[in-house]
Amino acid sequence: QGCDEPSTEGVNVFGFFQPRFEYNQMDTNDDTNTFDFNRARIGVMGIIPYDISYYMVLETSPSKNDGTPYLLDAFVTYSRYDFAKISVGSFKSPISLELNTPCHKLHTINRSKVVMQLATPDRDRGIMILGGADTTLFQYRVAITNGTGLFENDNNKYKDYAARIVMNPHKNLKIGVSYKYGKSASKVEGASDDERTRYGADFQYKKGAFMLQGEYLYGKDVGSYTTGGGCGEELELHTGDVKRDGMFLMAMYRTQSNLQPVVKFEYFDSDKDLDDNTEYCTTYGLNYFINDWTKIQANYIYRAERAHEIDNDIFMLQVTVKF
Amino acid sequence: QGCDEPSTEGVNVFGFFQPRFEYNQMDTNDDTNTFDFNRARIGVMGIIPYDISYYMVLETSPSKNDGTPYLLDAFVTYSRYDFAKISVGSFKSPISLELNTPCHKLHTINRSKVVMQLATPDRDRGIMILGGADTTLFQYRVAITNGTGLFENDNNKYKDYAARIVMNPHKNLKIGVSYKYGKSASKVEGASDDERTRYGADFQYKKGAFMLQGEYLYGKDVGSYTTGGGCGEELELHTGDVKRDGMFLMAMYRTQSNLQPVVKFEYFDSDKDLDDNTEYCTTYGLNYFINDWTKIQANYIYRAERAHEIDNDIFMLQVTVKF
Amino acid sequence: QGCDEPSTEGVNVFGFFQPRFEYNQMDTNDDTNTFDFNRARIGVMGIIPYDISYYMVLETSPSKNDGTPYLLDAFVTYSRYDFAKISVGSFKSPISLELNTPCHKLHTINRSKVVMQLATPDRDRGIMILGGADTTLFQYRVAITNGTGLFENDNNKYKDYAARIVMNPHKNLKIGVSYKYGKSASKVEGASDDERTRYGADFQYKKGAFMLQGEYLYGKDVGSYTTGGGCGEELELHTGDVKRDGMFLMAMYRTQSNLQPVVKFEYFDSDKDLDDNTEYCTTYGLNYFINDWTKIQANYIYRAERAHEIDNDIFMLQVTVKF
Repeated sequence: QGCDEPSTEGVNVFGFFQPRFEYNQMDTNDDTNTFDFNRARIGVMGIIPYDISYYMVLETSPSKNDGTPYLLDAFVTYSRYDFAKISVGSFKSPISLELNTPCHKLHTINRSKVVMQLATPDRDRGIMILGGADTTLFQYRVAITNGTGLFENDNNKYKDYAARIVMNPHKNLKIGVSYKYGKSASKVEGASDDERTRYGADFQYKKGAFMLQGEYLYGKDVGSYTTGGGCGEELELHTGDVKRDGMFLMAMYRTQSNLQPVVKFEYFDSDKDLDDNTEYCTTYGLNYFINDWTKIQANYIYRAERAHEIDNDIFMLQVTVKF
Repeated sequence: QGCDEPSTEGVNVFGFFQPRFEYNQMDTNDDTNTFDFNRARIGVMGIIPYDISYYMVLETSPSKNDGTPYLLDAFVTYSRYDFAKISVGSFKSPISLELNTPCHKLHTINRSKVVMQLATPDRDRGIMILGGADTTLFQYRVAITNGTGLFENDNNKYKDYAARIVMNPHKNLKIGVSYKYGKSASKVEGASDDERTRYGADFQYKKGAFMLQGEYLYGKDVGSYTTGGGCGEELELHTGDVKRDGMFLMAMYRTQSNLQPVVKFEYFDSDKDLDDNTEYCTTYGLNYFINDWTKIQANYIYRAERAHEIDNDIFMLQVTVKF
Repeated sequence: QGCDEPSTEGVNVFGFFQPRFEYNQMDTNDDTNTFDFNRARIGVMGIIPYDISYYMVLETSPSKNDGTPYLLDAFVTYSRYDFAKISVGSFKSPISLELNTPCHKLHTINRSKVVMQLATPDRDRGIMILGGADTTLFQYRVAITNGTGLFENDNNKYKDYAARIVMNPHKNLKIGVSYKYGKSASKVEGASDDERTRYGADFQYKKGAFMLQGEYLYGKDVGSYTTGGGCGEELELHTGDVKRDGMFLMAMYRTQSNLQPVVKFEYFDSDKDLDDNTEYCTTYGLNYFINDWTKIQANYIYRAERAHEIDNDIFMLQVTVKF
């Protein structure tokens, strides 16, 4: 009969958390610093013989969602066919290289601004078909989702469609392309439906201890759009149309002594129809890997202003422990 | 000394979650559909030699309690005497057959309206004495609880009393009776105490792959009562007296190929002193058991209106994965 | 490569919860009683070879933080040097004997009022250096923290500094001293910074089945201070200066039959510049240890009033189960 026995493979408890020290330079000279948490996650995963697996994880960090824990990823996967696995539940949107880098494996403490602005909602509820592996020439993911993120149900019949393909033409090189399109009821009463389109391209080149990553994202919003995210700001909803784009380029080298200097250059154009609104951000980082599950990251984020330089740089020190 | 060593039996992590796709027919023709979660639970249970066991589980679904996770069942049980175990903490109210069917073993995606309306609060805090097993002629549960559910403390000296007895006169048949009585301070300032009474009777007949279940519940509220719940609506508090009843009858058959068609007929009379307010609801379901821990349920809920037929039917597709 | 394999030692899931029955005597004769939960915690801890350990625990009790679960302790420790371990994350403030007694090992159900009033915030985020063990002559803990507790980031550059030293001059005796100093931006616009100072001294004498504990705490607040906590009240923020102190003395004896009578006397002076405001509270307790992981505690709390005796006593019965 069986429903009450645990699965033969057992339940694996896992997670990670990231205590962080942050120093914020303020233009008014009232600099602040604080100890906080970046992410604090705990979850379970396992395999149910023969073709089912599950994954469920909670975010419990006091700095996310006003400190209220919430269900992050939760999906069940049917994996009989390697080239067409099916997942249902909530999961990361299959666009962008950096969004799809696991949070505990990020090379800089923050994701780049363009990813945090244009790859939102970072997670969504729906169904995904995926196939391929690191060893195959192609990997792909196609998702149909609500488009409303983790917290709200969809209030119309439209769904979001997202796809990402990663090619491995050479053992050192990966090239990815992403696309997403979604419609939703207008935020303005009576107006026509809002539309959201995203294109992206990215690459990763790895040779020995050296790695180079780059990514470009373009977004076109009709009706409404959200801003905020990267470099430490909040999300906000706006009405109107906007075209935005941005990119990052990041290089790193891991030494024999488990030190990894990183440098990341990024820009983000918050409205392509305006001039002088492009933001530049350079992150200088140093990662130290204590062991395979624990690392320390130091980041200095330099934000360049077009018009006149202001004091708004950030220094962060973060420990990641994975279990 | 020992307080810091784990118990000899170890901690068992368990849970289940239910990604769901729901299609709502709207009378205005603005049909909606959404991916969501029904339940998403994670918890621990274990045995502490020799006579103590514990059970603690959190509900983390974004569709419950406005998405804020909460402590659901949490009780410790002293089980030296099989015929009189004692549990303290929070647990399911010992009334109703369908309420006491575990949520991941329900034959239809939703519980019936009468159960969701009259067996509230579904969980409560207090003390329970229970005895018997599936193999004994009688099983019983008696509870003394706050009557205020999981979220509020009791603000008076009155407690709720609930009892349920299940008889197994024949290996194929179970017959259950339930009773509950509670008093609480009046919701209206200065009025006499509110009273709540519930009676119930139910049966389950099982022969081979076939199963038939039926349940009747009657409720009498003096002073105040709550409405909402079943067939997808919200809870609401009302003042005044009301007598309500309802029932369901459900038949299912599990084929060799792990398919299980289900049909459930239910009615609910939301005020026995009024005419023409009885609601009828028929659920056509098909369950597919992928394995002992994973199933897919498809439900079509047809809601019949007395006066004139309106478009308010629901189609749901739900995956349950247990671990 | 390794980041996805579990650590060799594995993840240990642990926690405890405390169902409680509370009877409150009311002066108006409207006595109330309720079943509730005191604490309900679940977490993980483990060792990552060779020198790293982690600890992460959630509070999920409906009676804490308005029922919203939250991340309680979460720290990672580097423990290569026994005399100077380093922890970063959130942890208990290293002041006070009773605050640093684990919640599931408390001898009375409630901590004493002076500890709940003056050792706040009980937990904080920052960095701690600690050394020594129960077998060494000295143990110490020094912490630099935000001073804002678990829920808020620090909004200025000032940090709180806390230290605690415990001496073991004799195998039966421990003597502890605590100190804490913190500054924060004034709660009143434009005023000078708020300051908070705490001194404490405590001892524990243990001989066979007998134990005696005592603790004195003194607190001086400039600019603002909080009240509430012990003996069952809520926290509140006040502006102004205040000097406060208090103490408790507690004796207990554990019999062969696992019964442990406890008596605790405490006083708290909520403003040393005022007369007649000192509160006295006596707790009569009886602990019964069912086994090493389960105990039952009965407490009668008698609150003496200076001016005229009022009915405000409390009776509590609490089960603690640890796993």
